[in-house]
Amino acid sequence: MKGRIFSGMRPTGALHIGHLSVIQNWVTLQEDYESYFSIVDLHALTTGYEDRLDFSSLRREIALDWLSVGIDPQKSAIFLQSAVKEHAELHLLFSMFTPLSWLERVPTYKDQIQQLSQQGKDLGTYGFLGYPLLMAADILVYKANVVPVGEDQIPHVELCREIARRFNHLYGPVFPEPKDLVGKVPLLPGVDGRKMSKSYHNAISLTASSEEIKTRVQQMVTDPARLRKDDPGHPEVCVVDKFHKIYTPEVAEVEEKCRAGKVGCVACKRHLAENLEKLISPFRERRAYWEEPGRVEKVLEEGAQRARVTTSETMKEVRCVMGL
Amino acid sequence: MKGRIFSGMRPTGALHIGHLSVIQNWVTLQEDYESYFSIVDLHALTTGYEDRLDFSSLRREIALDWLSVGIDPQKSAIFLQSAVKEHAELHLLFSMFTPLSWLERVPTYKDQIQQLSQQGKDLGTYGFLGYPLLMAADILVYKANVVPVGEDQIPHVELCREIARRFNHLYGPVFPEPKDLVGKVPLLPGVDGRKMSKSYHNAISLTASSEEIKTRVQQMVTDPARLRKDDPGHPEVCVVDKFHKIYTPEVAEVEEKCRAGKVGCVACKRHLAENLEKLISPFRERRAYWEEPGRVEKVLEEGAQRARVTTSETMKEVRCVMGL
Repeated sequence: MKGRIFSGMRPTGALHIGHLSVIQNWVTLQEDYESYFSIVDLHALTTGYEDRLDFSSLRREIALDWLSVGIDPQKSAIFLQSAVKEHAELHLLFSMFTPLSWLERVPTYKDQIQQLSQQGKDLGTYGFLGYPLLMAADILVYKANVVPVGEDQIPHVELCREIARRFNHLYGPVFPEPKDLVGKVPLLPGVDGRKMSKSYHNAISLTASSEEIKTRVQQMVTDPARLRKDDPGHPEVCVVDKFHKIYTPEVAEVEEKCRAGKVGCVACKRHLAENLEKLISPFRERRAYWEEPGRVEKVLEEGAQRARVTTSETMKEVRCVMGL
Repeated sequence: MKGRIFSGMRPTGALHIGHLSVIQNWVTLQEDYESYFSIVDLHALTTGYEDRLDFSSLRREIALDWLSVGIDPQKSAIFLQSAVKEHAELHLLFSMFTPLSWLERVPTYKDQIQQLSQQGKDLGTYGFLGYPLLMAADILVYKANVVPVGEDQIPHVELCREIARRFNHLYGPVFPEPKDLVGKVPLLPGVDGRKMSKSYHNAISLTASSEEIKTRVQQMVTDPARLRKDDPGHPEVCVVDKFHKIYTPEVAEVEEKCRAGKVGCVACKRHLAENLEKLISPFRERRAYWEEPGRVEKVLEEGAQRARVTTSETMKEVRCVMGL
């Protein structure tokens, strides 16, 4: 039997190539695992109930991003968290035996409250405290064995295992104890050298056209000490090099030429832009296919149906052992 | 358009005549309101997740009690809370904007934690803190205008109104602000003069046979100062009189005769037993009908279906205004 993975992303806006490694990791995993990838719109509400987000366009965007990078709806179930009611149901049942102290002690809890209160967000809500419990329900309702996550989510997967253990101890062995699978996420700076972020306007979007790619690469900050083409360069301070390291197989040669003053920044950038074009152009093609009206909606509807088959099986067992 | 009521009871065991006034109140209300009466098994978990209750027999018992007193499944939807997933779903959505402080300040919260911790129960759970929020979801998912409750539940209905106002303010006018309807609940002592409770073995069950009624009434504590039949009696210290006050229309006459020493306790008890028999015998007849295999199950299944029609309409509106 294939293992199962569950992972999710909040629908907070179009993705950029800083997010790519996470989705590419999913694309690899879907070959070996029964995969559930969820657009976790309910989680977006835990920190943004006042935001009045336009979920209908946000979720379409993120689904298109996933599909264009290669998540295959034949292999993976892609769906909205809010479309599968069993997430809420299991979360409520878990809440009955989850000590408040377990949630209060989640390392990110107090940090995030403080951080977001500086942005004027009120997170002293019941739902924000329960967010890691909702995540535990998200994972366990699929009996996932493996959870691809970012490093910051490791404590949440640990809590999920504790919830699984407590449930199994109280009612009977229903849930696996899922393992986190922390993917290597190379840190990509924005073109200006700061953190890549849509709000800094320094990101390369997954939907970038050839022209946009060229423009963004031209904006990349290079070694300020290098004034002439044959000055020796310092790749360690150059944004272009950070990208070459990931997207240019022959990066060693590129760096050597730069240090020796044998390639100018203009040519070096052209080289990178070509590689990014090779990376992104297949996304554009797949995206054009999925953008046809109705296709994404169909993927999400079928994904939710597949998800519900699994979640109702789990809930049947849960009700049975709980005596409901 | 008819108003709507929602009310619920936890499935914690067979009911006794101390509970009768609440159900009789429902029986009256079902004539004038679209009525939803729920066996709130999820609430039973908030204080009893370790109890391993046998819900399948408990819920059958309580449904039989309701039906035998006269809740009419043609008029009212009778169903299990856990069978209608939208309770959990709306509870989760409400949690997003409900301040922790609102829940921590519910008057019963700290009292109950203390009280039940003396019984060895651990209530420091996320679910117990969220119990009034679940109750708000229970009520509002039916857009109930009126909530028949006991006096101790008034603060919970007040919280429910606050949740409704906050939702309507944040997202748009979806919910009414339900009113509590506090029924008159006459305080009936047990046959020994203590609080009537199954665990004290001093209760008259709604399923009592004629023999049981007679036995229980004979056990009732009377005026200890009255040794002979013609001694003047003191109804104010007599358990029998407390029952006459509720179940004997000609109670004034009964009390007068007692004070004058004109009726003995044996005859007075026989009189009460006859009246209780008149009260309870129709319950027995209806119960015999509903006890036939499959009938209760059908009532609960059809009740849940009717409930789901209403809850899915509400959730459609909720999702729409929240942009989900």
